[in-house]
Amino acid sequence: MNAEIIAVGSELLTPYRIDTNSLYLTEQLNQLGAEVIFKSVVGDNQRRLVAAAQHALHRSDIVIFSGGLGPTEDDLTREAVAEALGLGLKRDPDILKRLEERFAARGWKMASNNAKQADVLEGATVLPNANGTAPGQWLSGKFDGRERIVVLLPGPPHELKALFEAEVRQQLQAKVPPAFLATRVLKVAMLGESQVDARVAPIYKRYTDVDTTILAGAGEIQLHFKTCAPTQEAAQQRVDEVAGAVEDELDDAVFSGAGESLEQIVGYWLQMRNATLAVAESCTGGLLSERITSVSGSSRYFLGGAVVYSNELKTELAGVPAEMIERHGAVSREVAAALAEGIRYRCESTLGAGITGVAGPNGGTAEKPVGLVFHAVASDSGTEVIQRNFPGDRKRIRQLATTMALDMVRRKLM
Amino acid sequence: MNAEIIAVGSELLTPYRIDTNSLYLTEQLNQLGAEVIFKSVVGDNQRRLVAAAQHALHRSDIVIFSGGLGPTEDDLTREAVAEALGLGLKRDPDILKRLEERFAARGWKMASNNAKQADVLEGATVLPNANGTAPGQWLSGKFDGRERIVVLLPGPPHELKALFEAEVRQQLQAKVPPAFLATRVLKVAMLGESQVDARVAPIYKRYTDVDTTILAGAGEIQLHFKTCAPTQEAAQQRVDEVAGAVEDELDDAVFSGAGESLEQIVGYWLQMRNATLAVAESCTGGLLSERITSVSGSSRYFLGGAVVYSNELKTELAGVPAEMIERHGAVSREVAAALAEGIRYRCESTLGAGITGVAGPNGGTAEKPVGLVFHAVASDSGTEVIQRNFPGDRKRIRQLATTMALDMVRRKLM
Repeated sequence: MNAEIIAVGSELLTPYRIDTNSLYLTEQLNQLGAEVIFKSVVGDNQRRLVAAAQHALHRSDIVIFSGGLGPTEDDLTREAVAEALGLGLKRDPDILKRLEERFAARGWKMASNNAKQADVLEGATVLPNANGTAPGQWLSGKFDGRERIVVLLPGPPHELKALFEAEVRQQLQAKVPPAFLATRVLKVAMLGESQVDARVAPIYKRYTDVDTTILAGAGEIQLHFKTCAPTQEAAQQRVDEVAGAVEDELDDAVFSGAGESLEQIVGYWLQMRNATLAVAESCTGGLLSERITSVSGSSRYFLGGAVVYSNELKTELAGVPAEMIERHGAVSREVAAALAEGIRYRCESTLGAGITGVAGPNGGTAEKPVGLVFHAVASDSGTEVIQRNFPGDRKRIRQLATTMALDMVRRKLM
Repeated sequence: MNAEIIAVGSELLTPYRIDTNSLYLTEQLNQLGAEVIFKSVVGDNQRRLVAAAQHALHRSDIVIFSGGLGPTEDDLTREAVAEALGLGLKRDPDILKRLEERFAARGWKMASNNAKQADVLEGATVLPNANGTAPGQWLSGKFDGRERIVVLLPGPPHELKALFEAEVRQQLQAKVPPAFLATRVLKVAMLGESQVDARVAPIYKRYTDVDTTILAGAGEIQLHFKTCAPTQEAAQQRVDEVAGAVEDELDDAVFSGAGESLEQIVGYWLQMRNATLAVAESCTGGLLSERITSVSGSSRYFLGGAVVYSNELKTELAGVPAEMIERHGAVSREVAAALAEGIRYRCESTLGAGITGVAGPNGGTAEKPVGLVFHAVASDSGTEVIQRNFPGDRKRIRQLATTMALDMVRRKLM
């Protein structure tokens, strides 16, 4: 079955806001076996909303609206869908009562405009909203001779998600022909997209029934595999087979086979090895620590570290000899190694990681250009240093450098 | 004039990718005085693309397509727009030659599918793409009796932006009736959205000719003001007037009046006061340092700091007495103050900032629940500590805590 998603709200047509509900809804619809063929954003304008609803009902089996269910004059989704379908709206006394109670509970008198939130499309089922005032609505039936499902959901993401999970998913499942969908994700660090594709395209192209998508981020490639089959087992077997073959080809460049982040994987390995980590970072300015500690429970293996932006602090907090900085410069192989070793010693951790480089956009020289980064990992078996010249802006260079350091820690533990 | 944006590509209909080009294009179009009334995402499907193009041409003066201009079978924007407009496509020998040269320069022979990137709509102007192989196209004229502008742009954001700036903006400016648009942004830290709106709505509602949008993020509220007027000066005066009145009301809660980030503002103040900063953070795990150093040039005022996840490191790197941690717990007013004072002393900085708290989702107790954070700023005039109980998940709590600490530093310097 085909689905489409219409996000309603003039604020989504400004340069400041983007509709992200559709990513969640797409994931949910795909899992149920429905394909999203169209997404659109329409402002708070009755005439345009009606036209958009009509186009959508013409081409898609399932049409989901998000937003425009609030109490203000600008909230027009109910009215527009009613007009597009040629249906009336009826004020629901139960909803109205609950709205009034909600306000009374806060000691407020409900302003009259709120009453429109109780307007329900003829024949629609009301979907209670546990997290807000505006309920959703579900309508299914024949429109213009075609079987259609229309769902109205509130715009705030936490309301939309909770409502979808509680009220919509099961109803959709009963309507969408059962599709046994299986997915797998492989994640790869520090290889280029074309490099990865050249190696794995000959493999995934053999699996014409599996849908393969390659997504490239800063320092990370994701390979998404998806297929449908007559049974769940058959679908899972197909994606596992192609993922397995791709993993064999890419070997230890694949850091995750079940959706985990690199930070999580580093955490798993540290715990598995009963090891601890401390870091000393210069050009990445705390991003390495931040990424490691973004994982809940990271205090079990991450002790902490030093952000040593000034040369004095490289000496004071990470024990890098001042004369080494003097001789080789702060951005050097030697200082990277000394940062990793110094912070390891200082924190008495199993592993120490150090990063020093030029994140730019200023501070580059002919000899040490923007993007030059030295990464080091120290352990009782010695210190490894890797030098890279990263492309891109400050943000990208910092992201790449921290991914490199995390991947070095991962490989050291494997 | 009305504009709409169509993003082309099946990958934009997956749960993993979102169209962000439209934010940039909207900003550009708004600046030129055109309003975006519709955005949509269509997959790589000729029939659906043709229908989408027809709907768009029917309702909007300017239709901008992004993506679908590459060499693969899935790249169908040229073909679909030609069909929707009833125009032919002609292979342009100059573009073809440049494509072949581009491949030859890399020592490759051009695969035949690349030739389709040289196909140009009848009557269209070719827009050279300095950063990729697929050129853009510009077409203006009467379609179905209506004056229309159709622009085809490549999908990769850096190609699209460079091409828009070099080739499209001026041409659009000549076509769009001059609109004198002025905008202002005020940013506010650590106040709630409803709190801000309650105070400023009575002000901005008086300016019915100014469009006011309030955007709320974690710990930051942005107030966007926008208006058009017969002259640039008149427009600017109107937004400055409402922004000024709102700023008077919110007073020093407004940290930025010209779009700067809180991190930048803290940097400005530190430089203005000829002051330096060092930080010691526990539950925020490096995020405070990361935010400060995300600003290029921050090495002028940020010395560095310590990420003291373990209690031992709170003592070792930031000089917090072990017995203080023992007595009051790591998450306490006393330890926050000691972190700020200790790191200031250790780094010999003008100001020291300290954060300790419970970021969750685990580790909370009845006495010290998830979200409890102590923030401290130490200077030669003493140490200030602020306690907060933040709502939300780990990511949000960490964001709020670092915003609070940055805002404390700002207020200390004001």
